[in-house]
Amino acid sequence: MFEFVCQQQCRHSHARAGLFHTPHGSVATPRFMPVGTLANVKTLTPQHLEGAGAQMVLANTYHLHLQPGEEIVAAAGGLHRFMGWSGPILTDSGGFQVFSLSEMRQISDAGVVFRSPHDGQMIELSPERAIRIQEQLGADVIMAFDECPPYPASRAVVTQATQRTLHWLERCIAAKQRPDQALFGIVQGGVYGDIRRECATAMLAYDLPGYAIGGVSVGEPTTAMHEIVAVTAPLLPTHKPRYLMGVGTHLEMLRAIAAGVDLFDCVIPTRLARHGCAIVQGNRWNLKNARFRRDYAPLDPTCPCYTCGTFSRAYLSHLVRAKELLAYTLLSIHNVTELIGFTQAARQAILEDHFPKFAAEWEQRLCTSSHDD
Amino acid sequence: MFEFVCQQQCRHSHARAGLFHTPHGSVATPRFMPVGTLANVKTLTPQHLEGAGAQMVLANTYHLHLQPGEEIVAAAGGLHRFMGWSGPILTDSGGFQVFSLSEMRQISDAGVVFRSPHDGQMIELSPERAIRIQEQLGADVIMAFDECPPYPASRAVVTQATQRTLHWLERCIAAKQRPDQALFGIVQGGVYGDIRRECATAMLAYDLPGYAIGGVSVGEPTTAMHEIVAVTAPLLPTHKPRYLMGVGTHLEMLRAIAAGVDLFDCVIPTRLARHGCAIVQGNRWNLKNARFRRDYAPLDPTCPCYTCGTFSRAYLSHLVRAKELLAYTLLSIHNVTELIGFTQAARQAILEDHFPKFAAEWEQRLCTSSHDD
Ligand SMILES: [Zn+2]
Ligand SMILES: [Zn+2]
Repeated sequence: MFEFVCQQQCRHSHARAGLFHTPHGSVATPRFMPVGTLANVKTLTPQHLEGAGAQMVLANTYHLHLQPGEEIVAAAGGLHRFMGWSGPILTDSGGFQVFSLSEMRQISDAGVVFRSPHDGQMIELSPERAIRIQEQLGADVIMAFDECPPYPASRAVVTQATQRTLHWLERCIAAKQRPDQALFGIVQGGVYGDIRRECATAMLAYDLPGYAIGGVSVGEPTTAMHEIVAVTAPLLPTHKPRYLMGVGTHLEMLRAIAAGVDLFDCVIPTRLARHGCAIVQGNRWNLKNARFRRDYAPLDPTCPCYTCGTFSRAYLSHLVRAKELLAYTLLSIHNVTELIGFTQAARQAILEDHFPKFAAEWEQRLCTSSHDD
Repeated sequence: MFEFVCQQQCRHSHARAGLFHTPHGSVATPRFMPVGTLANVKTLTPQHLEGAGAQMVLANTYHLHLQPGEEIVAAAGGLHRFMGWSGPILTDSGGFQVFSLSEMRQISDAGVVFRSPHDGQMIELSPERAIRIQEQLGADVIMAFDECPPYPASRAVVTQATQRTLHWLERCIAAKQRPDQALFGIVQGGVYGDIRRECATAMLAYDLPGYAIGGVSVGEPTTAMHEIVAVTAPLLPTHKPRYLMGVGTHLEMLRAIAAGVDLFDCVIPTRLARHGCAIVQGNRWNLKNARFRRDYAPLDPTCPCYTCGTFSRAYLSHLVRAKELLAYTLLSIHNVTELIGFTQAARQAILEDHFPKFAAEWEQRLCTSSHDD
């Protein structure tokens, strides 16, 4: 039901092009996955997502548990029916949000207790509960409930969180019942390479259908993140998909692809759009900038998206200045297309056996270009 | 270049089905026109509008003059290119907004001086200037600059405003240069039937390519509006399109169609959407209402729109409660489809010679149904 086929392995790096088969279709990797926290990718319809080349989208267990509640999604026939997305879906376990967003939390080996930001009620989340909720939501890929330590954190704190993550993984595996869902484990270990290695090695024993690298992009320096990814990704099995959680800038994805990562997600394309920003060839442009007022070129003349095919920078600048909601939709269409397109281009380069050239060109372009906002 | 062809005249009312030909395509009437004040119909892409059956859309001279300015639109190649809408466009003259929105205005026979709400600068708008701006914007149909008296207003005030509207119309005609734009006159006269009649009669002398009924839906009782429309519309030439400005509820449109009106516009479908409300068979539903939380039916199972074909009321209720912007897009798609579809159904009934039955059924349905918000 789930299978990862490596179609081409780069001979000069860990980069690979693959196909990840799920019950709702296949994902051609490497690939960026748009984030639909509350069962929608902000401002985008499923039609827009398809047009942008999206194959797999995310939704969020923590947020959907709070609102509208997994029973409502289950009664609708599951997430696919509820949100009108017939392709593959991945839900994260809620662990990251519990540890990063909620106040008043108590962590024990049993699980986490926290106060609902909606109605103040105390909510308990445990490995068993996180799996049960995700089974009700019905995504194709579900994530293990993990403890994501903050940055910075001492070796002792990170070691304890990693041990707990491993114990919780065992309970997730035991709790899981639906055969049409794939459970991914999440490798933790902070910025400590040896803890990452131990965690990854311990996880391999469970022979999971996929593995994620979690606890990155939590405030650590970019170089530390690249090191961790470079150390961790190659430890994961070559015949299983590898997912780097919460990462979605060009440079970060490029280096992670070179390290053998297949899947990415990030809220950045839609969040930037809501701030009136476009991602163009890896650069960030603030459309409020005066230079766009009379610029009648498309955002990116080489971009295949609806926004670039239809509207000018001047028009987008006008909409952003006028605070028209359509601006956020049009910029999100472009930004999501841009990030997915970047991972598609990397995939193509791998398939055509010139990924090192592709990577070198982008490294140079990204490291010399400047952001204007 | 502009022609109105009456395809079928109802034998029991003034209702008629027609085709209004413009340089950017034809409009099958009666028809509702979505409002794109700032060169976009709020939250909808041109693709959405096409899917909703839109043929002609509006934009607003007053708002576009203030932001981004007509020069920017003209340099983009005009409104069609700027906003990505290749079908017919109509711009109103700005008169209504100057009189209803702006403070610090001075009205004289020369024109109106008002303070820009953007930068506080004094702006002068006259018949000549309104035409010049509309020629730069480049819509297919442009509207005469008129004085719209408030409601209530004395006979004396309405008489003076109507006289001025007629004088200004003459200056608009003299100022107009572009042959690819049709100038519509606007009949004023408040709720005074005799002044409406005089105004309409005086305007006929100019043999304009179309006529509008203005100064309605400004606070007068619904019955007064229906009377005014019933009195005024039949006075207008049968071989020219008739446009009732700012009206877009089912009942108002139904009665105006019976009086011989062809075109309508109103911000109501997109404004209601932004308040989380759907228009379903003429009723208004607030999606925040608890009864929709677990209602897995589409908004309207008979509606052909993307929203009804893809999502449930429960999903829309979730998005509205979560204040997700996508809710406003999805509700706008439905609401605009619903209003256009209603005018299309009226057109079909006229063509098939059973408009009286159609009207009677809708009258009964609309006058017995209740709104829930
Ligand atoms: Zn684009
Ligand atoms: Zn609908």
